[in-house]
Amino acid sequence: MSPEPSNRRFLLRRRPSGDFDPSVLELVREPVPTPGPDQALVRVKYLSLDPSNRIWMGEGESYIPPVPLDGVMRGAGIGEVVASNNRKFPVGSKVIGLLGWQDYALIGSDEEFPSQRLPALLPVPLPSLLGAMGFTGMTAYFGMLDIGRPRRGETVVVSAAAGAVGSVAGQIAKIRGARVVGIAGSREKCEWLVRELGFDAAVNRRDPDWRAQLAAACPDGVDVNFENAGGEIMEAVFELLNQHARVVLCGLIAGYGEDGAARGPRNFAILLMRRIRVQGLIVIDYQKRFTCAGLHLAWWMRRGKLQDRQTVVRGLEQAPAALVGMFKGENTGKLVVELD
Amino acid sequence: MSPEPSNRRFLLRRRPSGDFDPSVLELVREPVPTPGPDQALVRVKYLSLDPSNRIWMGEGESYIPPVPLDGVMRGAGIGEVVASNNRKFPVGSKVIGLLGWQDYALIGSDEEFPSQRLPALLPVPLPSLLGAMGFTGMTAYFGMLDIGRPRRGETVVVSAAAGAVGSVAGQIAKIRGARVVGIAGSREKCEWLVRELGFDAAVNRRDPDWRAQLAAACPDGVDVNFENAGGEIMEAVFELLNQHARVVLCGLIAGYGEDGAARGPRNFAILLMRRIRVQGLIVIDYQKRFTCAGLHLAWWMRRGKLQDRQTVVRGLEQAPAALVGMFKGENTGKLVVELD
Repeated sequence: MSPEPSNRRFLLRRRPSGDFDPSVLELVREPVPTPGPDQALVRVKYLSLDPSNRIWMGEGESYIPPVPLDGVMRGAGIGEVVASNNRKFPVGSKVIGLLGWQDYALIGSDEEFPSQRLPALLPVPLPSLLGAMGFTGMTAYFGMLDIGRPRRGETVVVSAAAGAVGSVAGQIAKIRGARVVGIAGSREKCEWLVRELGFDAAVNRRDPDWRAQLAAACPDGVDVNFENAGGEIMEAVFELLNQHARVVLCGLIAGYGEDGAARGPRNFAILLMRRIRVQGLIVIDYQKRFTCAGLHLAWWMRRGKLQDRQTVVRGLEQAPAALVGMFKGENTGKLVVELD
Repeated sequence: MSPEPSNRRFLLRRRPSGDFDPSVLELVREPVPTPGPDQALVRVKYLSLDPSNRIWMGEGESYIPPVPLDGVMRGAGIGEVVASNNRKFPVGSKVIGLLGWQDYALIGSDEEFPSQRLPALLPVPLPSLLGAMGFTGMTAYFGMLDIGRPRRGETVVVSAAAGAVGSVAGQIAKIRGARVVGIAGSREKCEWLVRELGFDAAVNRRDPDWRAQLAAACPDGVDVNFENAGGEIMEAVFELLNQHARVVLCGLIAGYGEDGAARGPRNFAILLMRRIRVQGLIVIDYQKRFTCAGLHLAWWMRRGKLQDRQTVVRGLEQAPAALVGMFKGENTGKLVVELD
């Protein structure tokens, strides 16, 4: 065995059929690469785990091409430049980008989505740049403010509300003066939403009578549905939608195991009869406003109006099991892997 | 038998299960009613037949309550006041409203939706007030201009394009400079759309390869889908939607036999991944702008930019059979019943 440091990487060997199955990934050790012209070598520090990881593994409907077979698993991350031939990324600088599930990433050229250098002074801890202040928080931000647009006193229902995006989306709706009801997967999560984040109510979707609880929590109907789940959960919220309600279509986790083939709700006609607006949201569309949104989110965090909770898993090798857990609803808030 | 004129009325005796079945309606003869205080008696001249007639018969999801059992079948119509205790509706004036499937209607009080008096001088023939210049045309107008918003050079696909709403919607998109592709149910209809109305292409959905024809007719994808049909037709259009496309959800005829239970499309995830906006449309929301829209539509008609085609059926007793024919796709343009 070589005494030199190696680059552990998760390669996608097969496409999963159905739910995410960790055996589609293989952990390999390769030599640490040397940066070519205009490239920089980044030591990955944190990886963001997201439902979209599953989408990227399959060949179903998506917004970017799937991870190529035998390629490194795609994932957003933060790292530090340790060798560089690119003046934009000097040694010691911090970067954020699609660094992949690996110890070391090459950035600076041939990147699907260019990595960004982070400012030296940051108003929040690094992992928050993957959470409430990162793509996750911005997804909630643009979805709630641009598409959902809750008015004071309106009722907002957030599904997967204890997840990374949902927990931020609900807090933003609270800041905007709405009545906010979360749907989550455990009693503990529901308690956290109400006690810590200030949700007006939270419903545990594992309770047998969760639909009745949801209806009771929304006596004036639902004006905004921030939808992360899809499937039966979305159908239950649809039943409660008021005329002219808005649906922020942010995720369809329930259908990701079907390779993006998430079927539409059985009660689709509600959209017509109640004149609902549904709009799909992928955060990359808002790239030009990332800085502005990030500052706004950081401002709310600093003033204590927005909490950023993370579930941190230590060790790259734990990433696949952690992703399985995410789809089972095991994490609360943002799920991050911290590399050794 | 009484020598006096009688009021023939279609009463809803049962709720249809599945597709519209004329046996749920019974034609009865009653005495012509006498207007009470504040009421006027209207002789119905024209009745508008619409897919929504089927919705109103059932108890499924709807935007207004269903027709009560043993009540007169609801329908929009135009008539002339023949007796009056209401100064707003003098004898001889023309009115438009939900007059119902009957020879004589009482208006002026206790109306679900108040009838309107028409101006004495009209720029278009009376039946056009049920067609391109009426609720039908306005549905197309607000749907295309407020929700679809096609830009010059964009591709618009209209389903049920040879129907009353679809044919107007497509013509408005042409006026706005879009490339317009229609989906219709016969070769004759397709020829009419292209040759007479100026559609850029039309696809006969009864051709075995209609999906391939549709894709070929939309080489740059679809930016606006004016949807009247739902079901498989909508799914086929969804496959072609461009990122950020708009779907005007105007009708789901394919699902009306299921009492508004039209299921969602199998490829629902497209809405998320391609960041589509879907918005349900019921024309009653735009009531404050009816006059303005009507004048705009009349202006286009007078300048020859907008054609209003009607299929006129003579005799109240023909209404149920004509409605069956509508769901089979037998009419072209607006289907109107002219009463004797």
